[in-house]
Amino acid sequence: MLKAKQWSVDNIGPTKLMVREAAIVEPTGDNVLVRTQAVSLNYRDKLVMETGMGLPLQFPFVPASDLAGVVEAVGPDVTRFRPGDRVITTFLPGRINGPGLGDARHPPHKTLGGYYPGVLSDYVTFSEDWFVHAPETLDAGEASTLPCAGLTAWFALIELGKLKAGDKVVIQGTGGVALFGLQIAKMHGAEVIITSANPEKLARVRELGADHGIGRANWAERVLQLTEDYGADHIFEMAAGANFGESLKAVAVSGRISVIGVMDGFDLSAPVQSLLLKSPTVQGISVGHRRALEDLVRAVDRTGLKPVIDRRYTFGELPQALHHLDRGPFGKIVIEF
Amino acid sequence: MLKAKQWSVDNIGPTKLMVREAAIVEPTGDNVLVRTQAVSLNYRDKLVMETGMGLPLQFPFVPASDLAGVVEAVGPDVTRFRPGDRVITTFLPGRINGPGLGDARHPPHKTLGGYYPGVLSDYVTFSEDWFVHAPETLDAGEASTLPCAGLTAWFALIELGKLKAGDKVVIQGTGGVALFGLQIAKMHGAEVIITSANPEKLARVRELGADHGIGRANWAERVLQLTEDYGADHIFEMAAGANFGESLKAVAVSGRISVIGVMDGFDLSAPVQSLLLKSPTVQGISVGHRRALEDLVRAVDRTGLKPVIDRRYTFGELPQALHHLDRGPFGKIVIEF
Amino acid sequence: MLKAKQWSVDNIGPTKLMVREAAIVEPTGDNVLVRTQAVSLNYRDKLVMETGMGLPLQFPFVPASDLAGVVEAVGPDVTRFRPGDRVITTFLPGRINGPGLGDARHPPHKTLGGYYPGVLSDYVTFSEDWFVHAPETLDAGEASTLPCAGLTAWFALIELGKLKAGDKVVIQGTGGVALFGLQIAKMHGAEVIITSANPEKLARVRELGADHGIGRANWAERVLQLTEDYGADHIFEMAAGANFGESLKAVAVSGRISVIGVMDGFDLSAPVQSLLLKSPTVQGISVGHRRALEDLVRAVDRTGLKPVIDRRYTFGELPQALHHLDRGPFGKIVIEF
Amino acid sequence: MLKAKQWSVDNIGPTKLMVREAAIVEPTGDNVLVRTQAVSLNYRDKLVMETGMGLPLQFPFVPASDLAGVVEAVGPDVTRFRPGDRVITTFLPGRINGPGLGDARHPPHKTLGGYYPGVLSDYVTFSEDWFVHAPETLDAGEASTLPCAGLTAWFALIELGKLKAGDKVVIQGTGGVALFGLQIAKMHGAEVIITSANPEKLARVRELGADHGIGRANWAERVLQLTEDYGADHIFEMAAGANFGESLKAVAVSGRISVIGVMDGFDLSAPVQSLLLKSPTVQGISVGHRRALEDLVRAVDRTGLKPVIDRRYTFGELPQALHHLDRGPFGKIVIEF
Repeated sequence: MLKAKQWSVDNIGPTKLMVREAAIVEPTGDNVLVRTQAVSLNYRDKLVMETGMGLPLQFPFVPASDLAGVVEAVGPDVTRFRPGDRVITTFLPGRINGPGLGDARHPPHKTLGGYYPGVLSDYVTFSEDWFVHAPETLDAGEASTLPCAGLTAWFALIELGKLKAGDKVVIQGTGGVALFGLQIAKMHGAEVIITSANPEKLARVRELGADHGIGRANWAERVLQLTEDYGADHIFEMAAGANFGESLKAVAVSGRISVIGVMDGFDLSAPVQSLLLKSPTVQGISVGHRRALEDLVRAVDRTGLKPVIDRRYTFGELPQALHHLDRGPFGKIVIEF
Repeated sequence: MLKAKQWSVDNIGPTKLMVREAAIVEPTGDNVLVRTQAVSLNYRDKLVMETGMGLPLQFPFVPASDLAGVVEAVGPDVTRFRPGDRVITTFLPGRINGPGLGDARHPPHKTLGGYYPGVLSDYVTFSEDWFVHAPETLDAGEASTLPCAGLTAWFALIELGKLKAGDKVVIQGTGGVALFGLQIAKMHGAEVIITSANPEKLARVRELGADHGIGRANWAERVLQLTEDYGADHIFEMAAGANFGESLKAVAVSGRISVIGVMDGFDLSAPVQSLLLKSPTVQGISVGHRRALEDLVRAVDRTGLKPVIDRRYTFGELPQALHHLDRGPFGKIVIEF
Repeated sequence: MLKAKQWSVDNIGPTKLMVREAAIVEPTGDNVLVRTQAVSLNYRDKLVMETGMGLPLQFPFVPASDLAGVVEAVGPDVTRFRPGDRVITTFLPGRINGPGLGDARHPPHKTLGGYYPGVLSDYVTFSEDWFVHAPETLDAGEASTLPCAGLTAWFALIELGKLKAGDKVVIQGTGGVALFGLQIAKMHGAEVIITSANPEKLARVRELGADHGIGRANWAERVLQLTEDYGADHIFEMAAGANFGESLKAVAVSGRISVIGVMDGFDLSAPVQSLLLKSPTVQGISVGHRRALEDLVRAVDRTGLKPVIDRRYTFGELPQALHHLDRGPFGKIVIEF
Repeated sequence: MLKAKQWSVDNIGPTKLMVREAAIVEPTGDNVLVRTQAVSLNYRDKLVMETGMGLPLQFPFVPASDLAGVVEAVGPDVTRFRPGDRVITTFLPGRINGPGLGDARHPPHKTLGGYYPGVLSDYVTFSEDWFVHAPETLDAGEASTLPCAGLTAWFALIELGKLKAGDKVVIQGTGGVALFGLQIAKMHGAEVIITSANPEKLARVRELGADHGIGRANWAERVLQLTEDYGADHIFEMAAGANFGESLKAVAVSGRISVIGVMDGFDLSAPVQSLLLKSPTVQGISVGHRRALEDLVRAVDRTGLKPVIDRRYTFGELPQALHHLDRGPFGKIVIEF
């Protein structure tokens, strides 16, 4: 009987990843069996393995959430897929449309490679609800970057932000979400300013279409200068901590700040005055829903967007890939099966 | 020649208010001359007199922003008003619709009784753009409470918040904005929870229609209990400081927090996790625009809402009225002329 | 073995309804078995039986879509309900949130008592996805009126229309959707004008809270007079045909016309000028999604809305109930089991 | 004293245009004096001259609404412009933001070259409120095409339509609004289908970026085929009459139909079924407001959009230019001064 190879850990802590074999689950009901072609890594995958993030993990735990693969077999109730279809996963299974699943006391947290098992396995068997069709114009490695990083940027700028041509967007950093933000903003005719402490990376984002690349120190003042005091219609807040005060300084009147990352800390703090006077919308972004991922796939196929992959690793090179994550990649890190 | 009596100060600092006489300005162009009937006070009026709030005040400075009166005469270009019309002021002159007037470096700050002269004068002459028609169902004292406190609550809940029947609203405190929030929320069929440290005030808000009154300590936990963990669709954040963390704890998934007041401090701080996972909209509220004030006037006339006035003072009793403000009134304080 | 009694027809045409017995289907997977307590009738139920409406009906066909009942048993995968829960059906099974299910060539049309079997049966077994919890404050007969008539009015006014206090609403007629529209509009503080050719019915809608009742002839001119030329922010277009021209005449600048009914014909026709100059939103309403039905249930429980039932019939009186439908009831017709 | 040359008519009817001289009005108050550089023509300009369109024209009447020019002098109250600034007019003077100016009985109709005087004059003096800054990247002829044709397309697709990458847009014809629609849709990453009876024009729109060009006969069926039955997210309805039925057939579930033109008649007629089942938004478009025109100018400068001008005529060639309008230009016709 065929077995699936998968990376897994036996407990939380300094990562001791092992490759195991596990039985392949034949699809029943509305499940589909998918053969993995590529998995994209997120820094969060490391946090889950090392800290558990308070999640009720089951061991051996298979990490990672973002998969591209091919449908091998389908259960009798499946209506959306057929064998041979190329698919990608959804980060938050079951969030089809509308708000996240949860309540005020138990915020939405049920993700693949977190509450649910992960996808670093050469076969997975999940409900068809957990997948969408992959873009036709991307290879598997590229497609695997959409479910988390791609959708986060799309959800912030387009689904919630209603971005339009001519809008001014500030994106902090050059990681996966940041570069998707750049590409999606340019796809809609916006003006994009990227912040980074690394001049070489700023040169590369200009090649990708960024209108301006600026340093991280006192970046808000530089944004005011570049926009002749207008400010930014949309800001990706990737750092939290005191950096949020810079975002409030740079945001335009009635602009939008999408809080996405926590590079500088797990707290926000800022003087409240700009929040009151400029009346921006501040919104935490927790990836997004399946319908928006389908919108993104459609946009990718229409516009020819190619996700930026810093480096592709083989299945066996997962440890090296995770080290690369620590160094702050330019775009995404992908494991190919 | 007729003179206007007005309260004014000669400099910033411990308030030395004096009544002076000033020439009445005949209306030219699109100006209208209005005879004041009532002025509603806001705590901000004290802050402006005592600290200047960084505004370029001209002395003698007349304080206060919220006026109800009667049009006495109109300039030749006036089209919206006739002598005899009952009017109220707009807090942010010139903000007809859409975003506030200003930019990222110079946030919207041009208010009556701040950047512009105030209204504690028995006659004022302003552009017709700065007024709207008063509600037919309110007396002048009641009408004078709408431009700042009334519009702030309406703008947060209705213009931006799209409140609907059955929504759960948490309002902190029992000041002017808070009680308008309660009345406007009930007008739309919402469920309202009021927080206050004062049991007597909680009893009074229940008489005004509040569904629940709770204490201020650990109020978020109490909201979760009252809503069976659902949380609050809409929260009026009146305190800032660490209280913002309570608001993030209490807010429903995809709910809304309107940041309005700064009772506990001029900074916000909070763990970012709830902001990310529950994805609420956090929005500073800076009163609102003239079109929304017209909507509020229409709603008041339709529904019979009566603003809550803690006490009415005469023109000469301004000092006592300001002391009352310090004690935290239940609703609004009004000066009648 | 227990059998379900159900009304059904063997073919399309002049209705020959018969009561049959059918096996009760034990719930498996995510299905729930529900014992019917009440079914609300819609005029559409007659059209389906008499014309088929182009739907692929399976015979014997059980009509009707709107049920209130009690969960008797649940399948092993059910998570949202337990035995004893009071529930109501959703009109469009599977439309959880967002747009209707279908595409431009095959518009959304899969309803209970249409594409799917109906509910005039003393037991039904459906996926848990097809139900929501019934309001606690309504009896079964009242609750059964929400899935189609109640949700249609709510979806038009609140989910899509963002109605607010002071808005002016015109509702044509006094059928089930119309009276829900009246009650929901008043629940949000709006001003409501009802049109009817029947003076007695106009008297009754005034008792229900309508601000104005007017005749059907030249109703648009009357609306302009009542609103001092402002027009209506929201109109329920219940007639189609040439009446749509009256709606365009009466609608306010940037107002909204919800096209719901076809009393005067299955075509729309109108001069395009008002559509261009006043720029209203015209939107066909096809009931709504499950999340909005849950919102409506919550609003009903909060505000105490009681649906208007013209008359309640017993299970055996279905033929008389259908005749009553032909006569144009005031509100809803309900069958109690 | 310097005089302005201007084209004008003395009465409504078969056009007898004459060039006259008129006094140049020195700017007072908030007025600005602008030297005209280019005027863009709309078919509406012919209709106004020939039929009056029910407007209270004052004779001699100067036609046309869309001007690009240079500020020569400003009144003492002007704050937004200085001499030397390049400007364009707004089509609906005084509509700064929000809904059109008017009410249900008197729909918004006060336009330049209609209710107000027109701009076929080498100097005009208007309130500064009636102008916006011209794009820096366009010459005067190009800039003059934005106020009516450009803004109409932008308002429909972006301000109201919230277009996003991957959306499917159908645009009927190849006139001025249509080609702006094409360019603005492509600027946001959409897929665009153009309908035209003229194969040569279809070839030209493909060069401009259209994804598909199709004939006018049975175009809705062709759209369904091209979109694999999905339909169109957004349709520009340029013909009215029975063509509206084709638009309803082609529109996607929950899509949008912007009613803009009346090539086939001044009535709309259609079966109501698709409107009910697919629940599209149908909205008449009456150009738009000044804030959206400023957004368009910003987008033009950011993306480098160049308006499509079929031919430029000199001031003296107005009669030939109007004849060209009758033949159905490909894009815009411009008069250069």
